Amino acid sequence: MPELRKDPVIGRWVIISTDRAKRPTDFAREQTKMKGGFCPFCYGNESKTPPEIMAYRPKQGGAPDPMRDTPGWNLRVVPNKFPALMIEGGLNRQAEGMFDKMNGVGAHEVIVETPEHNSTLAMLTEKRIEDVLWAWRDRILDLKQDKRFKYILIFKNHGEAAGASLEHTHCQLIALPILPRQVVEELEGAKQYYTFKERCIFCDIIRQESESGVRIVGENDDFITLAPYAPRFPFETWIMPKRHESAFENSTSHLYENLAKALKNLLVRQDRVLDNPAYNLVLHSSPVQDPNNDYYHWHIEVMPKLTKMAGFEWGTGFYINPTPPEEAAKFLREANIEAPVAEKPQPVAV
Amino acid sequence: MPELRKDPVIGRWVIISTDRAKRPTDFAREQTKMKGGFCPFCYGNESKTPPEIMAYRPKQGGAPDPMRDTPGWNLRVVPNKFPALMIEGGLNRQAEGMFDKMNGVGAHEVIVETPEHNSTLAMLTEKRIEDVLWAWRDRILDLKQDKRFKYILIFKNHGEAAGASLEHTHCQLIALPILPRQVVEELEGAKQYYTFKERCIFCDIIRQESESGVRIVGENDDFITLAPYAPRFPFETWIMPKRHESAFENSTSHLYENLAKALKNLLVRQDRVLDNPAYNLVLHSSPVQDPNNDYYHWHIEVMPKLTKMAGFEWGTGFYINPTPPEEAAKFLREANIEAPVAEKPQPVAV
Repeated sequence: MPELRKDPVIGRWVIISTDRAKRPTDFAREQTKMKGGFCPFCYGNESKTPPEIMAYRPKQGGAPDPMRDTPGWNLRVVPNKFPALMIEGGLNRQAEGMFDKMNGVGAHEVIVETPEHNSTLAMLTEKRIEDVLWAWRDRILDLKQDKRFKYILIFKNHGEAAGASLEHTHCQLIALPILPRQVVEELEGAKQYYTFKERCIFCDIIRQESESGVRIVGENDDFITLAPYAPRFPFETWIMPKRHESAFENSTSHLYENLAKALKNLLVRQDRVLDNPAYNLVLHSSPVQDPNNDYYHWHIEVMPKLTKMAGFEWGTGFYINPTPPEEAAKFLREANIEAPVAEKPQPVAV
Repeated sequence: MPELRKDPVIGRWVIISTDRAKRPTDFAREQTKMKGGFCPFCYGNESKTPPEIMAYRPKQGGAPDPMRDTPGWNLRVVPNKFPALMIEGGLNRQAEGMFDKMNGVGAHEVIVETPEHNSTLAMLTEKRIEDVLWAWRDRILDLKQDKRFKYILIFKNHGEAAGASLEHTHCQLIALPILPRQVVEELEGAKQYYTFKERCIFCDIIRQESESGVRIVGENDDFITLAPYAPRFPFETWIMPKRHESAFENSTSHLYENLAKALKNLLVRQDRVLDNPAYNLVLHSSPVQDPNNDYYHWHIEVMPKLTKMAGFEWGTGFYINPTPPEEAAKFLREANIEAPVAEKPQPVAV
């Protein structure tokens, strides 16, 4: 009998197919490799992107002017060349008859995680992944000063099937003048629970999941990685700080170190179990104007792109997930990430 | 300058790129043709599906037993062989610690629109499309008698990129013991507007859109086809009854006749302008237990699958649409659907 399960924060019901549960090899995988050609994120092509916002270079913190837009960086942040939002201008909220609109003011940046064209985030060392997390923090702290912005979204599309348009590994940042609807719902759900229980709902989830253990993928001193109880997608996984923290950017430095370890561990397991899938990663954190609160708990959501049952879900907000999270967690938990890969993983075309 | 536009019913903001607007030919199209092989929806293979729930045969209304599960039908409804929900059993709502679940009770049916394997819904005659609409109605009226069900969802995935797993043209029906979250939000949004204005928000949208005309694709005596003001997807289109109707299944027979005309007209235009795209179609109607009301207005939403920017949107509920609806509507409105197609449209592989 399939199960209907309710996400405790948002209140979204999903169908979990327990009978015809899909195993990792049941999913047709699309190639994550993309067409080659000119890459604006490789050394020597710095002039092909808009001017650098920030870069990490060996033995230097920021990007001093003389080195700007030249090779030698480990990580580089640039404005998106085709931004969805424009950094200049006022919001100019106005009506169009019964409709409402405003100018598309915001920031849209690209964080190039490494100069190595053939690397992936999972292949970077823990230290270099930590640099990526510091770059998220640095950019959030800088953009928070702009009072037009209500939310700063950090996300990653890995592979064409997940919406990436360039192969060279990168994340994106979008600063928005509004709170996205799903963020509002998550905040409201968490607030309602807090009003009722006087406890953070995510802290309660962590406590219950730690006791039962069935949906745990792994943990270290500061982070727990788990498959949520009512996931929308097969092998959806969350990484959460064990102690209550409402905003990502306020974390202490050892948290970034342990988050880098947790993230690398999960991505390597995911690559092993699902044969290098395309995936999306989204940072969920408190709004910039309410960074310190008792009810919201920042975390990272990772969603491998394994199914295409998208339009129905898009149209209705209703999800059918063919893999119970208990099974997904078990596959990920038991993956032998130390053993050599039997064969070089080949992307499977469908 | 890109625009942020707000959906007036749900309150969802979307980014509409006005500067780098995408034209129909800018989208990479995936093949809608799928791998061949055995088809359970063709004549002679009736025994390969679960037993027929209903069929339309020439000169017969229902499916009398002697003809059941044999060829000769024009349209056939069968249970999904791999149902997401099971028709038997009680809901058995229960807790799992702090989480909530219930049995996956529901109906999951397939409506095979024609015996012709190589047809599409757009290629059927208006009369045969009308039959499909009558089948939706017949199945809704039958399933409404089951008091366990709160919502009946009808949708269509056309093409592999839109989530179809079988090529032979068909729609699906899912009867649910809960109201999907996005349905609740649409109903609540419409109710709030009604409380404030004492008018149906969709009726107001139709009035304003008819006056401005810029987002209108077409209309006939009973239906208007338009690109919504704040669409999530490029070339998203809605078909709405011009006069207030809260539930699809309560429509009079001439409405189905004119809806068939409107639907065929839109799908042919869409095929012409977008070169036979994969698409999703979803019927939005009032819940089965509240079919007659003043605030909700049933309609059909059609979403061609042109972009892959999915994960970010899935993660946040925030959409970036590269084609302003005014331009999409103009392309669809001005398509010459009478002229012969210059060349046989070839699906474009990416």
